[in-house]
Amino acid sequence: MAGGIEIMSLLSMTHTNRPTILTGDRTTGPLHLGHYIGSLRARVQLQHEAQQFLLLADTQALTDNVGRHQKVTQNVIEVALDYLAVGIDPAKSTIFIQSQVPELAELFQYLLNVVTVARLERNPTIKEEIRLRGFERDIPAGFLTYPVSQAADITAFKATHVPVGDDQLPMIEQTNELVRRFNNTVDRSVLVECEAVLSQVTRLPGIDGKAKMSKSLGNAIALGATPDEITKAVNNMYTDQNHLRVSDPGQVEGNVVFAFLDAFEPDVQKVDELKSHYRRGGLGDSVIKRVLNERLQSLIEPIRARRRELEEDPAEVLAILRRGTMRAREVAGETLSEVRGALGLTYFQR
Amino acid sequence: MAGGIEIMSLLSMTHTNRPTILTGDRTTGPLHLGHYIGSLRARVQLQHEAQQFLLLADTQALTDNVGRHQKVTQNVIEVALDYLAVGIDPAKSTIFIQSQVPELAELFQYLLNVVTVARLERNPTIKEEIRLRGFERDIPAGFLTYPVSQAADITAFKATHVPVGDDQLPMIEQTNELVRRFNNTVDRSVLVECEAVLSQVTRLPGIDGKAKMSKSLGNAIALGATPDEITKAVNNMYTDQNHLRVSDPGQVEGNVVFAFLDAFEPDVQKVDELKSHYRRGGLGDSVIKRVLNERLQSLIEPIRARRRELEEDPAEVLAILRRGTMRAREVAGETLSEVRGALGLTYFQR
Repeated sequence: MAGGIEIMSLLSMTHTNRPTILTGDRTTGPLHLGHYIGSLRARVQLQHEAQQFLLLADTQALTDNVGRHQKVTQNVIEVALDYLAVGIDPAKSTIFIQSQVPELAELFQYLLNVVTVARLERNPTIKEEIRLRGFERDIPAGFLTYPVSQAADITAFKATHVPVGDDQLPMIEQTNELVRRFNNTVDRSVLVECEAVLSQVTRLPGIDGKAKMSKSLGNAIALGATPDEITKAVNNMYTDQNHLRVSDPGQVEGNVVFAFLDAFEPDVQKVDELKSHYRRGGLGDSVIKRVLNERLQSLIEPIRARRRELEEDPAEVLAILRRGTMRAREVAGETLSEVRGALGLTYFQR
Repeated sequence: MAGGIEIMSLLSMTHTNRPTILTGDRTTGPLHLGHYIGSLRARVQLQHEAQQFLLLADTQALTDNVGRHQKVTQNVIEVALDYLAVGIDPAKSTIFIQSQVPELAELFQYLLNVVTVARLERNPTIKEEIRLRGFERDIPAGFLTYPVSQAADITAFKATHVPVGDDQLPMIEQTNELVRRFNNTVDRSVLVECEAVLSQVTRLPGIDGKAKMSKSLGNAIALGATPDEITKAVNNMYTDQNHLRVSDPGQVEGNVVFAFLDAFEPDVQKVDELKSHYRRGGLGDSVIKRVLNERLQSLIEPIRARRRELEEDPAEVLAILRRGTMRAREVAGETLSEVRGALGLTYFQR
């Protein structure tokens, strides 16, 4: 779990005060091993080191799921179950639902005034996402402006650190631009700039070898996967197309099974030995898949068990989300008081 | 006061239920006679016929007053004073402050998802305003999207009627488009379409003859103007540049004094006689200005007196705004409950 540890040391190096982290997920589906490697694992560690706010981003998910709001709202509880199942501790991390913190919508609206449409259109992340979604000229206004909404989420909690992939760096840059412009406008340091915390882990590929694991691409292994689903997924994994006979030398690079072993097998020496053997020839795909299958089964088994347990007590999960959301409203409410104060929107307090 | 009466009959013709009106003003300065003729006079009448919500639009004013937020917030109380001074009765009309109703920001954010950026850029009112303000490519995102914010204001109160000038018709069209798209998306009639109520009154020119009376153009007569200020403004009014001697025939068309007499002098026969005399020649500017001055003095005198009285009791004015804002939050809150319900954002009520 090198990624997590490096993030921790980064945090302790750059901040004397306890850092505040804002992160989260769009609620469009249950989470999978790609999320585990890319973010969840680090969050479980970071909750001991930092004040951590975990956003169930339903409002953001709605910006490109118009007409599919049921998918978005139904998955709020699924993502929350995944968080809790992997070991996010609600006593340490604040898990909350974006749409239930109206302070975020209010801050979003004020921040819209300090960014131009042209600047939003230049955001490389947005450009790429517009291309991927095929929006072309029909970009929903909510989608073009979602980086501003994200900036509101980050700044409402005065987050000092935001874990991101490198494709998300322009979002952090834009957030800090908004912070500076807002503070300049009101001539006060109300909002706080944040630092991107880059994940050290390479992105986990899909089981089909595609660059990204994604539920919608059908190449993911869910955190709640059954033993059979895991075995089937591992058996379907792309390896080396030219590795036809066991005795043939095999290629490790671009081999999904080894990518997964690198990510999930803590015994690095064992993985190195398997790689050498595979390269030499004489190591069949079935063997490396069995090793990986055992590893994934033992990783997912307790997560799945905890998830099932929680699924049977939805009232308890909702109570956790309610407490988290109340706490989030308190913190965001304090920031909004300062924002309103700076803008002079304090008519009834004079 | 033909304008007001025609509006009333329009309302009663088209709605069997008591209509709901949403209207208001950007809070960028005290109001003037142009507002009185264009809207305030009708509102005083309409409050007996309709449920009337009067928006002190500070949030909207901020969209093109970045860095001038003090002007915006200080004028909230000025506009409120003008409302009360002309006879808006807080027991009949709900006067409230936009920024203090966070439900409006929330609805705004949801509506942004059902309109494209291209559609917002095609709005002729916005196009013209962008041109007037010289924004060119540097349009603040908050400004481009303010028609969506306006739609949120209108629909949060389920307004059936919105008084507008004809230059504002595209705003109503866009609001109704948003209503239809939102309702389609959630497959329920949650939001309500509204009707534009066109003012029957021609726009009052500035005292300098410019098409529009405006505080920033320095050609306005404020509702709180002193007797001296009124007299000075009337004396400075543009009449007919070619009417050099009293005996010369004068022109009534484009003559600011007659435009004002048409607007403010209820004795139509008297105005007609003055016009004939002026056209024939033999009627000096000083005479028609004296008639107008007397008329405006007697119109403004009670408004100014009431305004002074209220200025001395700011706590009472704030109490009125607080009650209005609470009432507005109640009504908008009910609509937002329906909106959240339709989108499935009701996690804690299940």
